Amino acid sequence: MQLVYLDNASTSHPKSPVVVDAMADYLFSIGASPGRGGYGQARKSHELVDQVRRRTADLLGVARASNVAFSANATFALNTLIHGALVPGDHVVTTQAEHNSVLRPLEQRRRAGQSTYEVVRVGPDGRIDLEAFGRALEAGPRLVVVNHASNVTGAVAPVVELADRAHQAGALFLLDVSQTLGHLPVAADEWGVDLVAFTGHKAIGGPSGTGGLFVRDPETVAPLLQGGTGSNSQSLTHPHGMPAKFEAGTVNYLGIAGLGAALAELDQPAEAGPSAADLREECADRLRGLPRVRVVELDDRVDRVPVLSFTVDGFYPAEVAHLLEERVGVLVRSGLHCAPLIHESIGTDPQGTVRVSFGRSTDKTAVDLVCAGIQSL
Amino acid sequence: MQLVYLDNASTSHPKSPVVVDAMADYLFSIGASPGRGGYGQARKSHELVDQVRRRTADLLGVARASNVAFSANATFALNTLIHGALVPGDHVVTTQAEHNSVLRPLEQRRRAGQSTYEVVRVGPDGRIDLEAFGRALEAGPRLVVVNHASNVTGAVAPVVELADRAHQAGALFLLDVSQTLGHLPVAADEWGVDLVAFTGHKAIGGPSGTGGLFVRDPETVAPLLQGGTGSNSQSLTHPHGMPAKFEAGTVNYLGIAGLGAALAELDQPAEAGPSAADLREECADRLRGLPRVRVVELDDRVDRVPVLSFTVDGFYPAEVAHLLEERVGVLVRSGLHCAPLIHESIGTDPQGTVRVSFGRSTDKTAVDLVCAGIQSL
Repeated sequence: MQLVYLDNASTSHPKSPVVVDAMADYLFSIGASPGRGGYGQARKSHELVDQVRRRTADLLGVARASNVAFSANATFALNTLIHGALVPGDHVVTTQAEHNSVLRPLEQRRRAGQSTYEVVRVGPDGRIDLEAFGRALEAGPRLVVVNHASNVTGAVAPVVELADRAHQAGALFLLDVSQTLGHLPVAADEWGVDLVAFTGHKAIGGPSGTGGLFVRDPETVAPLLQGGTGSNSQSLTHPHGMPAKFEAGTVNYLGIAGLGAALAELDQPAEAGPSAADLREECADRLRGLPRVRVVELDDRVDRVPVLSFTVDGFYPAEVAHLLEERVGVLVRSGLHCAPLIHESIGTDPQGTVRVSFGRSTDKTAVDLVCAGIQSL
Repeated sequence: MQLVYLDNASTSHPKSPVVVDAMADYLFSIGASPGRGGYGQARKSHELVDQVRRRTADLLGVARASNVAFSANATFALNTLIHGALVPGDHVVTTQAEHNSVLRPLEQRRRAGQSTYEVVRVGPDGRIDLEAFGRALEAGPRLVVVNHASNVTGAVAPVVELADRAHQAGALFLLDVSQTLGHLPVAADEWGVDLVAFTGHKAIGGPSGTGGLFVRDPETVAPLLQGGTGSNSQSLTHPHGMPAKFEAGTVNYLGIAGLGAALAELDQPAEAGPSAADLREECADRLRGLPRVRVVELDDRVDRVPVLSFTVDGFYPAEVAHLLEERVGVLVRSGLHCAPLIHESIGTDPQGTVRVSFGRSTDKTAVDLVCAGIQSL
């Protein structure tokens, strides 16, 4: 049975062959570690990393590429930005749509008595409760953390409005674009976003081990790591300059080479056929028509990424996922998707949902298979 | 001109083609993210990561593989183990041979008033001053941090003796095996080492973006990151279980696949010809015979990894490195090598050294080229 991968919100698959080609090419033609030598190949390596940095900045809508730092994943970036921006006594406002990579650092700080946080409600239709958001801001947070799109519902947050309000309240605004960068335009400069965390291995189609952060004013965030940067080695103080400030240790130059190839391919026109976004809507429409299926519905005014959650009455989500694999070869994720709080609002607590997430190369027949699998239950 | 890469202590090059093959194979045949789905490919991914974990534990000489956690690089591992093992008021003992990935976290904590540290002298012959070490332990450190081998001189530390003394003083013993794992046997269990930081992309020959830590008693170290682990998602508290405790966010499954292939190849017999260790000694002998060259000499009793430092009277190290590249195509690193304090003891402060570091596939002709290049100066 042909397997159909619909878990692109976890990691995109298949990756384009150009990603591996770029990594192989790097290994055999350059090989050196960036910034760790003065010889030509180390300089080439450094240049390649900086080219990918520039390309990433463009995708983030950021003019100052040096304020983009690479990291192993979005979780590292979020931890750096959260722990690094806060000092004891600070308060944070966030939302029910957040991933555990935001909620767990905040909870850790709360338990340690370092900071407090309030979670703003998200409606069952995917909309952040703006009144509640406004009230939460009255507590004077230092930081507001918002998921650009929920990895459970696909709902996109109204970033400009939220960032404006956060700024009016004197807060820094941190946007988690893990589910959007590569799917939707991001314009961090235009939107006035202060801090961004991103991943390379989801919608961009890059390899695992890539991601990073953008920081508008580096003075607002302390680094989580100190170490070698290949620069200013005589000093025992970790460098303040960007991007070294947030890039202690050898960067994943190989992953960054692959990320660069994936970014270049994003600029290519997509293959003919329905987009991932179209497939999401078609899948939602057709599932809606099936008995016992409850699609997590979004308000018509809410933008979305190609992530769709549903439940089937009488089945645990894990059973549905298992049967989809067994009967029609469709691979999906089930459960809470590392985002525990949103399930309270969308009525899927504590079992979570079945989540179908589409990618750039998902074929139209995938929706037929999902529906055939669900009908067979 | 054929280029000869002798900067293997920064990152090993060339990597074996099996490393890229394993990454490509993973991408095209498995693709999924480990632990992020219940379907077969996510389970396969999880199994592969655990196989490589087991293999890594074997190389570290550790029975309990689940206490090995992967990370982006050794710097992340060192920061986790240092910041995570210390609480305010703790004292640390370390040595002049340490890398900035140890010294900068300690300096950061000192400046923040969180902990203090003392740096034990290393003799000009590469030997740690054991009397000074003993005196330093009288201050009752919580943690002792030692580089298994200096990335400047190649000198190997007497781990068993240092660990025993650290334990007698009630301290945890952290060993940085960045320069040794893959070159020399490591036996963390037998030696009683409590904490280990390692990298995958140096002597092991794995890809960038790999490395990790071992922690004997996970209760002794708090994690630096909190986030999604694909497990226990309903809880806002980051999991305590190993290895999830230190693996927040998507692990670099692709890099780990490549690391696994590199580890498997370490078990293969080396190619015929002199080993990297032999080349180091031959290079030292021949350089010693050249006028104006000063080799950083090690005591005969000191074990070493294939890293060799020297200076040439009348030339800055950076000039020597540049001329070696230009005249004979040899790529070496010059300067402090991110290890600023050892240069005081070996008399190469503040310009540092020219460093030649050999790898598994370095050819005998490399030494001829280095010597020819130096003679041409």
